[in-house]
Amino acid sequence: MYHHVKKLMYTVHVDDPDPCFGNMLLEQFGGANGELAAAMQYSIQGLNCEDPERKDLLMDIGTEELSHLEIVGALARLHLKPMKNDREAAEADPLVAIAGGGGVTLCNSMGNAWTADYLKVTGELDVDLRSNIAAEARAKIVYERLINFCDDPGTKDALQFLMTREITHMKAFMAALDSMGKDPLSIGKIPPTPGIVDEFYNDSTGEGDDGEIDARGPWNEGDDWKFVEAPAFNGGVKPLARKSEDSVNSGRGKKRLSK
Amino acid sequence: MYHHVKKLMYTVHVDDPDPCFGNMLLEQFGGANGELAAAMQYSIQGLNCEDPERKDLLMDIGTEELSHLEIVGALARLHLKPMKNDREAAEADPLVAIAGGGGVTLCNSMGNAWTADYLKVTGELDVDLRSNIAAEARAKIVYERLINFCDDPGTKDALQFLMTREITHMKAFMAALDSMGKDPLSIGKIPPTPGIVDEFYNDSTGEGDDGEIDARGPWNEGDDWKFVEAPAFNGGVKPLARKSEDSVNSGRGKKRLSK
Amino acid sequence: MYHHVKKLMYTVHVDDPDPCFGNMLLEQFGGANGELAAAMQYSIQGLNCEDPERKDLLMDIGTEELSHLEIVGALARLHLKPMKNDREAAEADPLVAIAGGGGVTLCNSMGNAWTADYLKVTGELDVDLRSNIAAEARAKIVYERLINFCDDPGTKDALQFLMTREITHMKAFMAALDSMGKDPLSIGKIPPTPGIVDEFYNDSTGEGDDGEIDARGPWNEGDDWKFVEAPAFNGGVKPLARKSEDSVNSGRGKKRLSK
Amino acid sequence: MYHHVKKLMYTVHVDDPDPCFGNMLLEQFGGANGELAAAMQYSIQGLNCEDPERKDLLMDIGTEELSHLEIVGALARLHLKPMKNDREAAEADPLVAIAGGGGVTLCNSMGNAWTADYLKVTGELDVDLRSNIAAEARAKIVYERLINFCDDPGTKDALQFLMTREITHMKAFMAALDSMGKDPLSIGKIPPTPGIVDEFYNDSTGEGDDGEIDARGPWNEGDDWKFVEAPAFNGGVKPLARKSEDSVNSGRGKKRLSK
Amino acid sequence: MYHHVKKLMYTVHVDDPDPCFGNMLLEQFGGANGELAAAMQYSIQGLNCEDPERKDLLMDIGTEELSHLEIVGALARLHLKPMKNDREAAEADPLVAIAGGGGVTLCNSMGNAWTADYLKVTGELDVDLRSNIAAEARAKIVYERLINFCDDPGTKDALQFLMTREITHMKAFMAALDSMGKDPLSIGKIPPTPGIVDEFYNDSTGEGDDGEIDARGPWNEGDDWKFVEAPAFNGGVKPLARKSEDSVNSGRGKKRLSK
Amino acid sequence: MYHHVKKLMYTVHVDDPDPCFGNMLLEQFGGANGELAAAMQYSIQGLNCEDPERKDLLMDIGTEELSHLEIVGALARLHLKPMKNDREAAEADPLVAIAGGGGVTLCNSMGNAWTADYLKVTGELDVDLRSNIAAEARAKIVYERLINFCDDPGTKDALQFLMTREITHMKAFMAALDSMGKDPLSIGKIPPTPGIVDEFYNDSTGEGDDGEIDARGPWNEGDDWKFVEAPAFNGGVKPLARKSEDSVNSGRGKKRLSK
Repeated sequence: MYHHVKKLMYTVHVDDPDPCFGNMLLEQFGGANGELAAAMQYSIQGLNCEDPERKDLLMDIGTEELSHLEIVGALARLHLKPMKNDREAAEADPLVAIAGGGGVTLCNSMGNAWTADYLKVTGELDVDLRSNIAAEARAKIVYERLINFCDDPGTKDALQFLMTREITHMKAFMAALDSMGKDPLSIGKIPPTPGIVDEFYNDSTGEGDDGEIDARGPWNEGDDWKFVEAPAFNGGVKPLARKSEDSVNSGRGKKRLSK
Repeated sequence: MYHHVKKLMYTVHVDDPDPCFGNMLLEQFGGANGELAAAMQYSIQGLNCEDPERKDLLMDIGTEELSHLEIVGALARLHLKPMKNDREAAEADPLVAIAGGGGVTLCNSMGNAWTADYLKVTGELDVDLRSNIAAEARAKIVYERLINFCDDPGTKDALQFLMTREITHMKAFMAALDSMGKDPLSIGKIPPTPGIVDEFYNDSTGEGDDGEIDARGPWNEGDDWKFVEAPAFNGGVKPLARKSEDSVNSGRGKKRLSK
Repeated sequence: MYHHVKKLMYTVHVDDPDPCFGNMLLEQFGGANGELAAAMQYSIQGLNCEDPERKDLLMDIGTEELSHLEIVGALARLHLKPMKNDREAAEADPLVAIAGGGGVTLCNSMGNAWTADYLKVTGELDVDLRSNIAAEARAKIVYERLINFCDDPGTKDALQFLMTREITHMKAFMAALDSMGKDPLSIGKIPPTPGIVDEFYNDSTGEGDDGEIDARGPWNEGDDWKFVEAPAFNGGVKPLARKSEDSVNSGRGKKRLSK
Repeated sequence: MYHHVKKLMYTVHVDDPDPCFGNMLLEQFGGANGELAAAMQYSIQGLNCEDPERKDLLMDIGTEELSHLEIVGALARLHLKPMKNDREAAEADPLVAIAGGGGVTLCNSMGNAWTADYLKVTGELDVDLRSNIAAEARAKIVYERLINFCDDPGTKDALQFLMTREITHMKAFMAALDSMGKDPLSIGKIPPTPGIVDEFYNDSTGEGDDGEIDARGPWNEGDDWKFVEAPAFNGGVKPLARKSEDSVNSGRGKKRLSK
Repeated sequence: MYHHVKKLMYTVHVDDPDPCFGNMLLEQFGGANGELAAAMQYSIQGLNCEDPERKDLLMDIGTEELSHLEIVGALARLHLKPMKNDREAAEADPLVAIAGGGGVTLCNSMGNAWTADYLKVTGELDVDLRSNIAAEARAKIVYERLINFCDDPGTKDALQFLMTREITHMKAFMAALDSMGKDPLSIGKIPPTPGIVDEFYNDSTGEGDDGEIDARGPWNEGDDWKFVEAPAFNGGVKPLARKSEDSVNSGRGKKRLSK
Repeated sequence: MYHHVKKLMYTVHVDDPDPCFGNMLLEQFGGANGELAAAMQYSIQGLNCEDPERKDLLMDIGTEELSHLEIVGALARLHLKPMKNDREAAEADPLVAIAGGGGVTLCNSMGNAWTADYLKVTGELDVDLRSNIAAEARAKIVYERLINFCDDPGTKDALQFLMTREITHMKAFMAALDSMGKDPLSIGKIPPTPGIVDEFYNDSTGEGDDGEIDARGPWNEGDDWKFVEAPAFNGGVKPLARKSEDSVNSGRGKKRLSK
């Protein structure tokens, strides 16, 4: 169960309220990569988790994110406050001003109500940890952009604290994933089909004077990879070869025949 | 620009239409981790990307996912077809039956219209690649669950193909991220605050007879980590220490004073 | 800030998992009148509240609702578990089964992702308390319906506990509103226009053999009320009287003229 | 069935169109507490209602709110009109300007499409009346804020009329609820569990120098209430007492044992 | 303004309640092509319309659709009623049963809350009339499907009435569009670019053994049309010709140069 | 399957980035009538279509719209780019600036995530073609409004191209519908009820000094039509005549009796 101490983990100070910036801050309050999204993603993963050790980790960080929600909310509220009485300030976020009376609402900077569609919860622990590593990376970059658009020292200081914690969480989730000792490409129990798994399909082609490059790199060259021209272009507009050994489809066709 | 060849990358065969399974398949057509989500996430990241090589990668895989959308759609359509005339089949997905005439719709298995809220696009290349790695892991596990709930051999074969490709993409995105040569914990340009970044806050406590464990692991122990008891519990219900050197808040308090 | 003790306020027992009932339980987990909606509504009202005493009340109950979310989640998870492997069970909620791996998700019983559109937060304390009284009444009746559709004794016991707490909260919010000492019809600062405020417009008429009644009651009769026939019907299809003293519009017309 | 007279209940006059204010007005056209929300909430409650007298009330007010939707729409349309040709005006609401051609759309001030998620309809008459009382209070305060941000006399006059009617409706719904003669805390048929219903859980604690107060008031003190310290803090971080008579959990534990 | 007569335009009779069918009926109550969508689309178009004659038409039909909403609601309510007490019936729509108490809700058959995203309102009269013609055609086919899945004579009779009215409206909107005397391909004021407007791009190609046909018909052959092979395939994978007279791009390139 | 050539069908040039206009452009990227909506509507209709010739048409145009999505995206990206570093520019669309790093996102001009609720897909070919004709008309007028609010010649040129193609598509869909040879008012298989289908209900009345006109036109007068006064007003507030030959209801009543 939860307990709440009416004292922020971090006490916020705002010298110079900036309603437009308050509106931007809502990205981290009720936005797609914000603190409620983090808190809910980890807590619900934790609720479903059957590994007691990593369940503890998920609940630890999920709970910390709830406290961060409170910090961001306190910060945003101070910046949004002029909307209570100032018509011009109110234009920066009429939903906050008119419907919310100048207080924070569970919306992002464009007034979209927070939705659980933002969450990534699969109930497969290593997959969930990957979703969390990505989520922390997104939250970090969003805090960095907020810092870059902010002048108020107290606000920058609070955002620096919150941004730092996202890196902490990213590090913890990476360690937790690593400690599971799984091959990074082994997800679930059913193995991928050998051969097909190593084919790279060149489905986007860039040639000609103005065309963009058709790039090769570690993601499609080397011993691990078989580079396959986009089937539709394989021999002009001719149909996909169905009988040759080296085409994508024929391989699968054969597999089906041999069943 | 796009070109379309009216021939599936993979020709689907369904011997035994199963409307309930057709409904489940919609998770990969119009669902949160489905093929349209993948196609749009990578294509839009690619459109915004300023690294020409990885832009090519994003467009290659984004385009392949569009083709997968077509395969899943063809598969789902064959399973949903009995809904056209069979009242009992129609009950498995009345939206498909009544509004869609038994054809596929851009919804998930519970009839939720596809929404771009599913996408994770930040415009920060390494962050986007992390989101993509996680997205592929999720798509893989969803295909595995569909295979486990399916009896039709032709359908299982198609799903195995699609599932395999997700691992291919995961491998490519991992290689692309790795080839950027960035420290995994270095996101954006502003560094985290030293000291605070290594603190693990024990915000979820499990003690007593029925309590769950308070776990330690590589994610919160070792030279890299400083384990901090949840501030609220630090010394019972007493207020957070504000003046001692070793508390979370005092450190930050001092930093602000010294500005 | 928040702290979490990994021990439920109420330990749940389920003897006989019932996936369809687990799906129904999601109404109180991720549904419009469920525990997250309550937790967020009160906590955000509390964050915005400038009355320190009632702010404490809002945070107390908001925090308790978070704990209830955990209880409902634990209960739903036990009922949904068969969806992990049982195809028939999975049909009761394919989103939970296929995308969520049989764990709880932040959705309602029809798979709709939780949305902050469910919340009612105005930043006007007495108005917010009224919204909360209504919210608790709704949550109570939803728990009652769940109890009526449930056979498992352990589940019924937990639901009875949760249902009881909603009445507790309703009582507390009523006392808090009452203790503000405001006239129930005085909302905000601008008074309603005298005269117009006491007019009841009979805009829905029921006459004829099969027509429904045109009811009178304390809500439109007595000294407090002036009963006004629907303007459109006032004298057939003739235009609204604009000059007579006793019509709705003329009153307002005169007021404007006299400015 | 409905009939419509092409004459507003209230004829609107706007001397000075203000596109930003027109955008704000959309809160009461397609917003969460706006006129369509009111019209639909009451009309659908009325459609489901089996008490013929209060059904009439619900249809009367639901129909009046439809007429108010038209008044607000007429008002907003006049303020938004400059968006048809004026680029700067268009920036106040590009959705209205570009997609809607400068006419009203069924959105709120931040362009969110109206959604039935705003509605509170339970089919339990007294509960629905409570939701309606709260809805009217919210609509009243929103109109007051609009009046405060408006300079145009004709617009203020119309808003004053509409605001007044919300108080009228609040009064009517209160009278209708009161006339049902129910104990305010008796919702539905299943009684709450005695004892537990009177416990107030102090789940949010505020102590220390900067902590906020831990308030007592009629909502948690007096003969009616038993004040219970937040279980997690009951005796420090020790587990919840399970065997003592006076703890929350043990009471329920005993009840279960005695079945 | 609106007036409501508590007597349905059409009195519904249901001999044999069928909760699953009641759930399907919600498509026409709170669904994308349902009666509220029609009522709101036409009424809001009417509110914005500056052509007094067609404004009258839009309000006439918009108002009639509101009455249809009431008929469908009355019908659905009778079919859903068993959900109040019957657990098995409740499983057909747990949102209706648990949250709505067995009454109608403003949702579709899959429990999605009605959203104004369904509406098509542009403020350009002829465009709006085209949207309405299409909307009526969709509503007609949805009613037909409902009739095909229904056994109850009273219900079929009501649906036949409602379905008939959609054809009436379609006919009226077609006459209204026709009476405007506009060239069907003249939309707005800016003419399309000659030449480009008559080019048909063959962007989907079907060749090979299993490929689908590459069709020609009145939509891409004849004097009116210039058939252009998909630029990407024009000459294999070579870049788009930019300088030749006969390519798509060169035409536009030349136009830009000649400015 | 899809192939992508990394070269736009139309190469965009922007001399003068205008972030506010970039935000407006998102209407055609991720908006209700934008290019993704068109691409998905036609492609999914095509996937479901069983008429091989018109299926080809749907896939041709659906694929072209995907290419248009890329053009609009490239255009919007150039206009939004200043948001990366310029705080004032960022205020035009904080979601793009803060969450998206100044790149395009799949949202409209008010930040609403694209949703498949925008799509109209019924699986009835002639009905779908009607929806497409209307969709193209809407897209045309939206492009025209964007052109009117734009000063940059390169941008206007690109928009003129895209706008022109919408007329091309409208023409093609009209020809395809026409070539099916169906009576325009014959939708599906069940015929409307004779008599009722020709009745026009005058449900919106405009009389009195300020009332709007009660219009007659080809949509409600002539041999084809029977004009019926709104039942509620037919003879004042008296009940609907149920037994006379000429009333709406009695006709149906008789039909039911004669079954």
